[in-house]
Amino acid sequence: MTQAVRIKDLGRHEGQVVAVRGWVTHVRSKGKIAFVVLRDGSGIVQTVASLQDVGDETLARMDAATQESSAVVTGTVRADRRAPGGYELQLKSFEVTGDSPDYPIAPKEHGVEYLLDHRHLWLRHRGPWAILRVRDEVEKAIRDFMYDREFVLIDSPILTPAACEGTSTLFETDYFDEKAYLSQSGQLYLEPACMAFDKVYCFGPTFRAEKSKTRRHLTEFWMIEPEMAWATLDDAMALAEEMVSYIVARVLDRRAEELKVLERDTSKLESVVPPFPRLSYDEAAAILTRPENVKRAEEAGAPPFVPGSDLGAMDETILGEPFDRPVMIHRYPVEVKAFYMQPDPERPDRALCVDVIAPEGYGEIIGGSQRIHDPELLQARIAEHGLPESAFRWYLDARRYGTVPHAGFGMGIERVVGWITGTRHLRETIPYPRTIQRLYP
Amino acid sequence: MTQAVRIKDLGRHEGQVVAVRGWVTHVRSKGKIAFVVLRDGSGIVQTVASLQDVGDETLARMDAATQESSAVVTGTVRADRRAPGGYELQLKSFEVTGDSPDYPIAPKEHGVEYLLDHRHLWLRHRGPWAILRVRDEVEKAIRDFMYDREFVLIDSPILTPAACEGTSTLFETDYFDEKAYLSQSGQLYLEPACMAFDKVYCFGPTFRAEKSKTRRHLTEFWMIEPEMAWATLDDAMALAEEMVSYIVARVLDRRAEELKVLERDTSKLESVVPPFPRLSYDEAAAILTRPENVKRAEEAGAPPFVPGSDLGAMDETILGEPFDRPVMIHRYPVEVKAFYMQPDPERPDRALCVDVIAPEGYGEIIGGSQRIHDPELLQARIAEHGLPESAFRWYLDARRYGTVPHAGFGMGIERVVGWITGTRHLRETIPYPRTIQRLYP
Repeated sequence: MTQAVRIKDLGRHEGQVVAVRGWVTHVRSKGKIAFVVLRDGSGIVQTVASLQDVGDETLARMDAATQESSAVVTGTVRADRRAPGGYELQLKSFEVTGDSPDYPIAPKEHGVEYLLDHRHLWLRHRGPWAILRVRDEVEKAIRDFMYDREFVLIDSPILTPAACEGTSTLFETDYFDEKAYLSQSGQLYLEPACMAFDKVYCFGPTFRAEKSKTRRHLTEFWMIEPEMAWATLDDAMALAEEMVSYIVARVLDRRAEELKVLERDTSKLESVVPPFPRLSYDEAAAILTRPENVKRAEEAGAPPFVPGSDLGAMDETILGEPFDRPVMIHRYPVEVKAFYMQPDPERPDRALCVDVIAPEGYGEIIGGSQRIHDPELLQARIAEHGLPESAFRWYLDARRYGTVPHAGFGMGIERVVGWITGTRHLRETIPYPRTIQRLYP
Repeated sequence: MTQAVRIKDLGRHEGQVVAVRGWVTHVRSKGKIAFVVLRDGSGIVQTVASLQDVGDETLARMDAATQESSAVVTGTVRADRRAPGGYELQLKSFEVTGDSPDYPIAPKEHGVEYLLDHRHLWLRHRGPWAILRVRDEVEKAIRDFMYDREFVLIDSPILTPAACEGTSTLFETDYFDEKAYLSQSGQLYLEPACMAFDKVYCFGPTFRAEKSKTRRHLTEFWMIEPEMAWATLDDAMALAEEMVSYIVARVLDRRAEELKVLERDTSKLESVVPPFPRLSYDEAAAILTRPENVKRAEEAGAPPFVPGSDLGAMDETILGEPFDRPVMIHRYPVEVKAFYMQPDPERPDRALCVDVIAPEGYGEIIGGSQRIHDPELLQARIAEHGLPESAFRWYLDARRYGTVPHAGFGMGIERVVGWITGTRHLRETIPYPRTIQRLYP
C-alpha cells in the first residue's frame, strides 16, 4: 500500500508517490485535465490529474466530487512555487470515501449565526481551523511554561457548595438533595494548595451565567490561574508579563502559517516582550480625565470614566492604545475590587491588584492580586461584604495555620486567543461556544 | 538578603548560607540544641540550631513552634547521608511568619472522612503531596504525548443541550429558560472535529450523577479523550498502549521520590511496555467460565459472570491478574456497548471496541471503539435505542458530509493515578474530590 502522508509533510517526499487522505474543497476541470484542492487537518494541497494518467472514469469522478467529500488519492509530489504549501500532487488515483451532497456551508457568505449553527462543520474551514490551532498552541505553551517553572497542577472542582458572592451569575444544579454551583474561579481552592506545593495552578472551564450579549462574553470559558506562596503583587506582575510574552513568542514561532491564513499583522505581536508598561490606577485616572479622552469616550457613546470607579471597555482601549505591548494597571481602589485583595500598606484605600490590558483594543486579559494573608483582616472583610463566614471557614484555615503572603492571577484563554489571532468575537475562539443565546450544537 | 532556595535544590548550595521558606512539621529540642523539620512544596529538610549559633531567644522560638507554622530560616547547607534528601541546614536564624495554634491534623491517625473534611490542609501532608505530584506528572505527560503526535486540543463543552441517553446520571441546570446538562464525555463533539483536524483530543472534567458509593466512583473526574480520523479499532488500541506506557515511564523517571514516599512497588510498573496482551471478549468469557474462576467470584461474593453480558469488577480483576501489564479486552457483544460503536464486519454481533484493564486489580482505565461512520447504520442504531434523532442531527452531519472511518477512546485520569500510585480509593487521587456524599470543601 502506498504510504499515507499528511499534507504539511509532502515536502519531505518530493518526487515520490504517496497517498493523501483528505476532503475536497474545490474542483475545477478543463477538458482533459482536472484540479482538485484537498485539505486535511494539517494543510491544503492542489492535485492535478490528466486524462492520460488516470483515465476518463477517474477524471469524471473528480469532476463530480462535491465540497467536503472525503477522498483517498495517490500521486507524485512535485514542487510548485505557486501552489499553496509549495507542492502539488500529480495524481495516479482518486477514490471517494464518503460523498457530501448539498454541503450546507457554500463558499459564499453566510451570517455568523448560521455558521455557528453549523459549528461542527464550520470547524473544517480555514478561519476556524487556524484560530483553533492557535488556541491549541496557546494552551500547550501555558502548560509548558507552568511545568518548566515547577508549578503543580491542582485541578480545582467545578461543582462547589456555596454561592459565595450571590447566585445571580451562577449556574445551579441539584446535588443529591443539596444545591451545587458551577465554579467561576478556582482561586479559593488554589490558595490553600499553594501552602502545600508553593506554586500551583488550575486550568479548566469556568462558568458565568451573565445575561450579557457583548462580543466579550461567553457563559463557559477556560481560565488559567497560577497562585504562589511567599509572593507579592510584584511577583504576580512579573509572572504575568513573562507568561504572556512566552505565549506570544511560541505562537509566532510555531503557528506562523495560521496567523498568515488569518491575515494577522504579526509586527504588532513581535513587540510583546518584557517589561510591560505599568500604570497605577491614579495615573490611569489622570489620563482618562484629560479633556481629549473625555471627549473621545463621549463621541464613542461610552459611559464617562468616574474617578474611583472601575474601568470600562472604552477606558481600557484608551489606556492600551499608546503602547506596543500589554499595559499593567495596578492598585485600584479597594472598593471596586474583590474582598480578598491585600490593601497597599502605603495607602490602605488601594488594593495590591493588577489588570493586564491587551493592546489594539482587545481589553483585559488578566486580573490578579496579592491576597490578604492576615486571618483577622480577612475575617473582617468577609463580614464587611456581608458574606456568610461559615462558607469561608475552610478558606480562612489557610491563614489560621502558617499563613504566608501569596499572590496570583487569572487569565482568560479566549481573550488571549482573540487578541493574538485578531478575532474580535470571543465565540470564534472556542470550539463550541456557549453564550446567553447559544447552547447548540 | 540571603538567597531563598527550595528544599529540593539545597544540594546545589552545599557549604553556602541560604534561606528556606517553609512550614514546620516536627520540633525536637534537647538542652542547648534544637531540631526543626521543615517542609516546602518541593521536599523536607531537617534544620539544627545550637545555643551558641542562634542564642537562647531563637532556640526558645524554635521550641515553641507548632506544627504547620510558617517560617523563614537561614543557615548553612551541610551534606548528611542520614538526613532525608541528603542535606541538613545548620541554622543562623529562625523567624515565624504565621503561627499555627491547634492545627487540626495531628501526627496521630484520623479517619479518612475527617481528613477529607480538612482536605484544604491535608494537601500539605506527605501522602496527598506525593499522589498529587504524580497526578501533575501524569497530566503533563499526556499533554506532551498528544502534542508531540500532532493531536489538536479541542476543548469540548461542559454545558450540553440534550440528555441523549436519559437524564438519570446527569446533572441538570437552568440555562436561560432552557435545560442544560453537564457533559459526561466530549466524544460526540470530537468526532466532527477530527474531520477538521485529523487528530484531536479533549481533556477536562466530566460529570456523572451516579448514586454509587464505591471507591471507584467520583461524580466529577477528569478524562482524556483522543479521536482520530481515518482510524480503526487497531489504531485506537495501538495508541492506547503507547500512551499508557509513555505515562508510566515518565512517572517512573521523574516522580521516583514520590513513589518512594508512597511505598509503591515500582517493579510492578517497570514491566508496563508495549505490546499489551489482547483478549477477545470470547476468550475472556472462556477464562471467566472456568470452574476455578467461577468458584473464586462466588467466594468473593461477586455476581457470577454471565456470557454475553458486560464485565464486572471481579471479572476484570481475574482477567488482569496473570499479566504484568494492562490487558486489552476487545470485541464485546454489540448489545452491552454504546449505540455508536462500529460492528465487526466479520461478526456483526460484536462491536469493534476495547476496554483496557490495569493490572493488580485496579480495573478498567480505558474504554474505546471504532465509531460507526455509515450515516444510515448510525441513524438505524439511534432509532433502535429509542434515542431522539433531533438531538443527534448535528452528530449525524459528520457522516453525511465526507464521512471517514474514525476511532478513539476515553481514559479516566483518577483511575490511572490510582493504579500508578497504588491508591485504592479514587477520592485521594484528585485535589478536592466530589462524591455522592461529599461536596465540601
